[in-house]
Amino acid sequence: MNTQPLTHGTIPQRLAHIRELMSREAIHALLVPSADPHLSEYLPGYWQGRQWLSGFHGSVGTLIVTREFAGIWADSRYWEQATKELKGSGIELVKLQPCQPGPLEWLAEKTPKGGVVAVDGAVMAVASARSLSSKLADHGARLRTDIDLLNEVWNDRPSLPVQPIYPHLRPQATVSRGDKLTTLRETLKDRGADWHFIATLDDIAWLFNLRGADVSFNPVFVSFALIGQQQATLFVALSKVDAALRAVLEQDGVTLRDYSEVAQALAAIPDGDSLHVDPARVTIGLTDNLGSDVKLIEGLNPTTLTKSQKSQADAEHIRQAMSQDGAALCEFFTWLEGAWGRERITELTIDEHLTAARARRPGYVSLSFNTIAAYNANAAMPHYHATEEEHTLIEGDGLLLIDSGGQYLGGTTDITRMVPVGTPTAEQKRDCTRVLKGMIALSRAQFPRGILSPLLDAIARAPIWAESVDYGHGTGHGVGYFLNVHEGPQVIAYQAAPAPQTAMQPGMITSIEPGTYRPGRWGVRIENLVLNREASASEFGEFLKFETLTLCPIDTRCLETSSLTEDEREWFNGYHAEVRQRLSPLLDGAALAWLNTRTAPI
Amino acid sequence: MNTQPLTHGTIPQRLAHIRELMSREAIHALLVPSADPHLSEYLPGYWQGRQWLSGFHGSVGTLIVTREFAGIWADSRYWEQATKELKGSGIELVKLQPCQPGPLEWLAEKTPKGGVVAVDGAVMAVASARSLSSKLADHGARLRTDIDLLNEVWNDRPSLPVQPIYPHLRPQATVSRGDKLTTLRETLKDRGADWHFIATLDDIAWLFNLRGADVSFNPVFVSFALIGQQQATLFVALSKVDAALRAVLEQDGVTLRDYSEVAQALAAIPDGDSLHVDPARVTIGLTDNLGSDVKLIEGLNPTTLTKSQKSQADAEHIRQAMSQDGAALCEFFTWLEGAWGRERITELTIDEHLTAARARRPGYVSLSFNTIAAYNANAAMPHYHATEEEHTLIEGDGLLLIDSGGQYLGGTTDITRMVPVGTPTAEQKRDCTRVLKGMIALSRAQFPRGILSPLLDAIARAPIWAESVDYGHGTGHGVGYFLNVHEGPQVIAYQAAPAPQTAMQPGMITSIEPGTYRPGRWGVRIENLVLNREASASEFGEFLKFETLTLCPIDTRCLETSSLTEDEREWFNGYHAEVRQRLSPLLDGAALAWLNTRTAPI
Repeated sequence: MNTQPLTHGTIPQRLAHIRELMSREAIHALLVPSADPHLSEYLPGYWQGRQWLSGFHGSVGTLIVTREFAGIWADSRYWEQATKELKGSGIELVKLQPCQPGPLEWLAEKTPKGGVVAVDGAVMAVASARSLSSKLADHGARLRTDIDLLNEVWNDRPSLPVQPIYPHLRPQATVSRGDKLTTLRETLKDRGADWHFIATLDDIAWLFNLRGADVSFNPVFVSFALIGQQQATLFVALSKVDAALRAVLEQDGVTLRDYSEVAQALAAIPDGDSLHVDPARVTIGLTDNLGSDVKLIEGLNPTTLTKSQKSQADAEHIRQAMSQDGAALCEFFTWLEGAWGRERITELTIDEHLTAARARRPGYVSLSFNTIAAYNANAAMPHYHATEEEHTLIEGDGLLLIDSGGQYLGGTTDITRMVPVGTPTAEQKRDCTRVLKGMIALSRAQFPRGILSPLLDAIARAPIWAESVDYGHGTGHGVGYFLNVHEGPQVIAYQAAPAPQTAMQPGMITSIEPGTYRPGRWGVRIENLVLNREASASEFGEFLKFETLTLCPIDTRCLETSSLTEDEREWFNGYHAEVRQRLSPLLDGAALAWLNTRTAPI
Repeated sequence: MNTQPLTHGTIPQRLAHIRELMSREAIHALLVPSADPHLSEYLPGYWQGRQWLSGFHGSVGTLIVTREFAGIWADSRYWEQATKELKGSGIELVKLQPCQPGPLEWLAEKTPKGGVVAVDGAVMAVASARSLSSKLADHGARLRTDIDLLNEVWNDRPSLPVQPIYPHLRPQATVSRGDKLTTLRETLKDRGADWHFIATLDDIAWLFNLRGADVSFNPVFVSFALIGQQQATLFVALSKVDAALRAVLEQDGVTLRDYSEVAQALAAIPDGDSLHVDPARVTIGLTDNLGSDVKLIEGLNPTTLTKSQKSQADAEHIRQAMSQDGAALCEFFTWLEGAWGRERITELTIDEHLTAARARRPGYVSLSFNTIAAYNANAAMPHYHATEEEHTLIEGDGLLLIDSGGQYLGGTTDITRMVPVGTPTAEQKRDCTRVLKGMIALSRAQFPRGILSPLLDAIARAPIWAESVDYGHGTGHGVGYFLNVHEGPQVIAYQAAPAPQTAMQPGMITSIEPGTYRPGRWGVRIENLVLNREASASEFGEFLKFETLTLCPIDTRCLETSSLTEDEREWFNGYHAEVRQRLSPLLDGAALAWLNTRTAPI
């Protein structure tokens, strides 16, 4: 019989219980961010405490509970959902706006002098904890990170995921884990670090040539890694690794320890040794285990930069994966065009058929993110996702936006295309054409090696700004190699800080995805992935250019092709010729005919 | 009889003397930057201590003297000059390279634990002093800013400049000093500041509608200002202000105090009051006078932003000044083309004739910087200035670069044009055309109001990068209104940090001046000034566009006009039509004919 109080009833009951504990601990405010010990984009259920305690299920949002107040800070993507889900919970929606103070500033201002704010240190980055501590200190308050109040009230907390781990093998894994470890150890030596601790799952998966399925869409597994000059220890639930893989890892000098032993391992780092960590990618709950005489060397995880620079052998596999992905899209579009008017097609049907087309392709593993199939007004919400409960029948006239991608053993894809439904209007065509101009402008660009990637954004936006149009998201994000579809360190976004690590280097893969969103009407986005290639070296330095990796026709029926300049037309026809040449061998019948039609020169 | 040791002999004698004093004071290293208490670009002789002590006369360079070592840190512009001037001085040239540690890092590393570095606090910004202090503290050393060793050895130190101050009057001064003070006081109130202290000379000249001639090319005067809600005190050598002006200032609520009394006035700010200062634009020597209970409110001087946003009335005066300046250039070019082959023309002749043409124009006050007339290889040095000792005869074939500008009562100009000499080569024409393409691309751009100006640089560079060419300087600097030709806060340079204050706002004037430099061969730069104008407001926000202010033909004989796109050709012909229309009324005879020829459509 359970003698614990019943807390998994209603949200108000959960809040009341947590407030009792806050009172017991003399805590004025509890902060519950959307985060886990790996600071991942997608969280396993075990770390979805904010959802459990608030009832708000959006993927990003911050909960603050004080004795009298509870609020969810969420950005505009989630306002509609949060309003609905928070109704009757006693929790307010606080609308997070760009350039306005956020939840941390609110805490600093509202916590009384001498007051205590608590956050589970296991899910707060060292850098964020420092920043919040300092803000609170300015107001005479302080931060506690050594207590997880939520765990005491959360009786039905899910367990951690236990999906098996498998090796990423040759030929797709082009560098051995032994060679990756050697490179990493050389970097650590250069930086004067005896040890390196990694909490980010994609860095770990990349370094050890291992993959898993603990997290949706990202082929990673829940783990930590501690690397020394002689040792490499991987902390995972041991049941995830079979005996054969364990033997291979041991042969490569990788020791396995249970996931739960990481704190103990950090505490055992000898006094006087130096440890390299990224304060933005490791939580305070972990570093708090370190002895006070361990010297911290702070910086980006070296693997983040190495991982971003795909080798020429990687690029060859990625080109093959892009061909397979493009062929799957051609088959899907062929089906779609044949089905118009004959089948009932909703946004969900799109997702099903597109996923099935990808799944038929060799090397396919999973989707790389939730497919966005959004018709007309739905597409004006850049992160819209159709569900069983809410989705739109595709009928009448307008624009269908499809943003989708796959994980293949040899690469990760991410592509957005616009599909004409019935007859798009002249205004819709102008929007598509302007967005295409932006994509072409950046796709054709050449730029100095090492330029900070946010500084390139204006090249894509200039043709869009020229007509007094803009879009609120970044133009491009880094993409992994059979890894996360969002990875750093580069980012093409004028809103992002041009930090030194965002420098463009050969081998990086980035999306180019300008857009235009007209709320309540329609949304446009066109997206290709591009690879940084060496272009030339001159007396003025080294220059890079983009190779477009994504292979799929851009439907001219959405475009006002007469307004393309000669240079733009040349790029467009060249791209379509390349698409036709590369995809033809993978298609036949109706799909091949469709490809030929849709890539005809303009 | 002078009983002081004779120190104004040789550089080694000066250094020996300063080392005696360092020894007496237990100072390990002396830092002598190129700076004055106003952190100005051009320094009066009184503050050229680095030049006096080292014998190096370049305008930017940092001297460090330790007991065993002395070195000048200078960037590549000055290496040749420094090598020559430092010969036999016992002072080494340390070549300052971009992205490499500079003199402050050197000091932090070389100063022994417990050691003391001294710098005259009167010439070091608060922010720089903090940064150096913290670097030294990391190495167990400390900074002293309360002693001016140089003054003890510098017997023949020049006195401070004493040029008269005069009012900037209507109609060119479009906002009264009373209104400017009112606006400033409202901003201070908003920021919770009781007081505001200003040390930057252009901010002071702008705020009080006064001008002077203490500093070359910048019509400013040596002064400080302290503003409260009730008081406004201007600290200047009282002899500079005549009785009539003094009376006017008093009527406007401005009190004059002697320049030397500023420390005393800062010390007299009451305990508990708050003072707004810009830590990058005020020296530590001044803020050290403040009582410990004066609360500092730190931020950009409010006048820096207000000054940068020229009113529509200002813009009208600037357009007139630009017409006069353009007309002067037309007369000069008409003379030049008539003189080829008939007179001996050197880079110095160019300067003389161009300055004379400007001086004949109404409203002209002075040059706004040293004219750069640089032929062929000389133009490959972006900061080249011909002197009596070293200048080039203009003969044969090639390109002459002329970068010049004037101060007018109604505005400040800055323009660069390329002049064909004989027959420029195809490669020279390609360089000029590519640079022109960059200038046109940015001149035509529209962009969101408030975008951080460094982020726009890629628009100018894209057509230049496209051919694997780049240039090491920024694309654009802010320009004052009958004030400094270099002013902030905006800057169009991808090398600059996109700080919040660099945001583009209506009324700002910026240069657009891409270039190409081929060492030992030739250099190309084309420069116009542009004004930020409101373009449109849409559902996507407010947008700005540039109005080109500079009016002067761009010589098509330096261009490969066939490689201009249709859009570029349209911009170019539109610009020349505007130049012709605006300058024709100010010209006659040969100059008018020249204008018509040089602005013929292509």
